[in-house]
Amino acid sequence: MFRTISQNFSVAFSYQTYFTQGLFDLNNPLFYQAFSQFPFHSPRKLFFVLDEGLMEHHPNLREKIKNYLANYPQEFKLTAEPMLILGGEQVKNQSALIDKVLEAIEQAGICRHSYLIAIGGGAVLDMVGYAAAIAHRGVRHIRIPTTVLAQNDSGVGVKNGVNYRGKKNFLGSFKPPIAVINDFDFLKTLDARDWRSGIAEAIKVALIKDAAFFQQIKADSELLNGRDESAMQNLIYRCAKMHLEHIALGDPFELGSSRPLDFGHWAAHKLEYLTDFELRHGEAVAIGMALDVSYSYLVGSLSESEWEEILELIQNLGFAIYHPALEAKKNRDYAILLGLEEFREHLGGQLTIMLLEKIGKGIEVNTMNPALILQSIQMLKQKSEQSAN
Amino acid sequence: MFRTISQNFSVAFSYQTYFTQGLFDLNNPLFYQAFSQFPFHSPRKLFFVLDEGLMEHHPNLREKIKNYLANYPQEFKLTAEPMLILGGEQVKNQSALIDKVLEAIEQAGICRHSYLIAIGGGAVLDMVGYAAAIAHRGVRHIRIPTTVLAQNDSGVGVKNGVNYRGKKNFLGSFKPPIAVINDFDFLKTLDARDWRSGIAEAIKVALIKDAAFFQQIKADSELLNGRDESAMQNLIYRCAKMHLEHIALGDPFELGSSRPLDFGHWAAHKLEYLTDFELRHGEAVAIGMALDVSYSYLVGSLSESEWEEILELIQNLGFAIYHPALEAKKNRDYAILLGLEEFREHLGGQLTIMLLEKIGKGIEVNTMNPALILQSIQMLKQKSEQSAN
Repeated sequence: MFRTISQNFSVAFSYQTYFTQGLFDLNNPLFYQAFSQFPFHSPRKLFFVLDEGLMEHHPNLREKIKNYLANYPQEFKLTAEPMLILGGEQVKNQSALIDKVLEAIEQAGICRHSYLIAIGGGAVLDMVGYAAAIAHRGVRHIRIPTTVLAQNDSGVGVKNGVNYRGKKNFLGSFKPPIAVINDFDFLKTLDARDWRSGIAEAIKVALIKDAAFFQQIKADSELLNGRDESAMQNLIYRCAKMHLEHIALGDPFELGSSRPLDFGHWAAHKLEYLTDFELRHGEAVAIGMALDVSYSYLVGSLSESEWEEILELIQNLGFAIYHPALEAKKNRDYAILLGLEEFREHLGGQLTIMLLEKIGKGIEVNTMNPALILQSIQMLKQKSEQSAN
Repeated sequence: MFRTISQNFSVAFSYQTYFTQGLFDLNNPLFYQAFSQFPFHSPRKLFFVLDEGLMEHHPNLREKIKNYLANYPQEFKLTAEPMLILGGEQVKNQSALIDKVLEAIEQAGICRHSYLIAIGGGAVLDMVGYAAAIAHRGVRHIRIPTTVLAQNDSGVGVKNGVNYRGKKNFLGSFKPPIAVINDFDFLKTLDARDWRSGIAEAIKVALIKDAAFFQQIKADSELLNGRDESAMQNLIYRCAKMHLEHIALGDPFELGSSRPLDFGHWAAHKLEYLTDFELRHGEAVAIGMALDVSYSYLVGSLSESEWEEILELIQNLGFAIYHPALEAKKNRDYAILLGLEEFREHLGGQLTIMLLEKIGKGIEVNTMNPALILQSIQMLKQKSEQSAN
């Protein structure tokens, strides 16, 4: 009754994540060398989009970039002035800003073999990466993350996205960058919240995969609180490496339902919206982890001592483990509980939530008990008040 | 001076292209069976977007679909009424329509494991495929092409896209569908132009890859002109098969500069714009091929007899080989010549144009001589006038 043609093929993806300092210092060859492996069409056309937030502490960044490129006139051509764009989660909420980037790509004559380079925090990278993924069905994209969170987590991965109709990352794609360049020097000028915020993702990956890393973070917590650069660099490198391994060895484009790296994230995503993004992503993840760790304890999966140990580290690093938005109501329901269904819808298929069996080992479940979630919130509230006293 | 983590992984893509008749007839098991290979989350959630143009000849299509699904209540759940959307290239020009589809996806609660099914011509499939690719970073997408062109070419491939700021397919992605279902019955009600238009892509693929297929089309030309269903079904199957093989064995996501399947397309894309899409895609491709075939003859690549033979077949099948828009001016330049640079920009890197060496064998070049292009246009104009007399 019918004929069939079967189509099967594989596509290989490959990119380098570099760690450096002083990326645009004239004597640092990395930026130039990073291009050597890409097919050459002389000169390479570059277009930069920069997080506006960088201008406060790096007012000369555009000039530094231009001076650097001027050293390689045969290799690089800047197709337009570097563009500044709003930083922070708001950049993912405004479709007019995506249009502005797309328009600039079109005006600059950026093609599939040109380079769209984004420098900034995770939100700017997510949004510019999305524009890079859809313009001309994908232009070459290089990410230069400037925050702890972007350097150890979102910026090194394969996802991009923007928010739409009040849903986080409703629009986006899986599209690997062609390179990621982490410049540790950007960390020096982060404010205290951004310095701390990204540590949450390192705790996350340690909790579900690597007990030794958890102990390392614990051992380094005083150094991290004291803004020790070397401790932070090691944390970022190790976290980024685990993140990249997880992608390569797992399900890079997330065709299944499981998403272990989203430990603590179902509540975190909802909290970001409920606080109108007053909470940074990492701060929300810290609370989301505290919640799922407490839930893991309540259902008998995690021991009391490890539950205590984890919450203690989260708090010692300066994170809150409770926020009043956890108890916000929508109509007569707890708004946070709606986050579960939204998370399921975004993942698709069956709800799959990562809980903890012990430090360094996650376990997936397919349901969560609302009453126990609310009880977990009360436990966190209490613990939080105790610490405040 | 720096550390590096190297990331390497492959992603496997697999999908079936089915050829059937009476897809939603109650006794046709294909639609139901096509789902058997996808992970099951009972019931499967489906959302249909239909080309409005189908309503004229298939006013009961929505009811047929609903009746069919009603036979499998455990397996399928229609999350919302099938949505109708404008057909033809205009659907790719209006961002409000993309928003309408995205909004419907969001409202219908479609997730990454739900099925967004598009039924229609190539333009509707391109646009709905784009929405499917970016919503939730990609929802499962099934294409049901209803025109010759979509069944043998665009609908079976991995690309989607919409137009933006006057540039064809400026926004889009490479995202394989999870299945393609060609229902030949939709061809019965095509108007004469749409019946003919898609034959152009079969001529194209025959010219650059398969002389025997070219001779087959020639032998079948009277049958095709007489709307013989069997001749058309064979043409579609063979063309789709070559198209799919080309994708799988070549560069599926077009990371290089070469794009042999775009033979005749640089001028065709421009002609569609210059005629405000009055020309159908296949009609524009026929003229674009006639132009590049004439150019191939002028530069001494193609013999005169084969040049004559090709133009004769194109004309015998009812295609024009000339359009006044070929001579349209923009300021003092021929607008068609701008299409070369736009094509280069869309492909990226070096301009790569496919010409013919002989029937069944293409050859790539990196420049075209504007004077010879204009001379080719004059030859086509003359030949076209001769045939008219």
